[in-house]
Amino acid sequence: MTIFSKIIKGEIPSYKIAENDRFYAFLDIFPLVEGHTLIVPKVETDKFFDVSDELLAEWLLFAKPIARAIEAAVPCNRVGVSVVGLEVPHAHMHLVPINSADDLNFTRAKLKLSPEEFKQVQDRIVAGL
Amino acid sequence: MTIFSKIIKGEIPSYKIAENDRFYAFLDIFPLVEGHTLIVPKVETDKFFDVSDELLAEWLLFAKPIARAIEAAVPCNRVGVSVVGLEVPHAHMHLVPINSADDLNFTRAKLKLSPEEFKQVQDRIVAGL
Repeated sequence: MTIFSKIIKGEIPSYKIAENDRFYAFLDIFPLVEGHTLIVPKVETDKFFDVSDELLAEWLLFAKPIARAIEAAVPCNRVGVSVVGLEVPHAHMHLVPINSADDLNFTRAKLKLSPEEFKQVQDRIVAGL
Repeated sequence: MTIFSKIIKGEIPSYKIAENDRFYAFLDIFPLVEGHTLIVPKVETDKFFDVSDELLAEWLLFAKPIARAIEAAVPCNRVGVSVVGLEVPHAHMHLVPINSADDLNFTRAKLKLSPEEFKQVQDRIVAGL
């Protein structure tokens, strides 16, 4: 079972943003910027483009209101999207509020936020959903 | 009219990969790596998450066979996805064959390929569709 499946099942705690029957969204614990959110389908698939057509068709519709809530909660030019997938073999999408291309650069150092800071940004995003 | 609309209309040449009634895919002329492809909807919308639900639901289904053709054509671990959108106000998605997170780092220098090199990678990708 991947670390994301353990998060979805609640075996590992997360700052949850949204959930439906097929997807789970939560704050990335190693954020590029505040508000950095992950979207993960509940079914485990390694590569993003091996995900079923049914889930791919729903993915961006699940992401849309979350992206808008992030954009409302965190000062930014817009919400960027990234799918990398070289570390956890469970397809996932990053939603990141960006002001520059460097805000989507996964080679740079990640932020260290306190639990209180994570909780605050979680609350602000969830309030906009 | 955005530069992407001019490309879609053929007023600016491009190395076309695929097209349907709603989307156009072509090689990024400033590629991060060989095979770097852009997917653009024919309707102009600035921000990705302002694109209509109908198009968002179709977007990843249009991208899937292209991503698989890129993965077959270019040696890579997998195809990554990025939506940045800070330069051209016409929503677009990057499909990039990656071996590391740095291959999706838009702050790094872009490749300079010759027309022959673009044509060769275009032919290899299109052959896999």
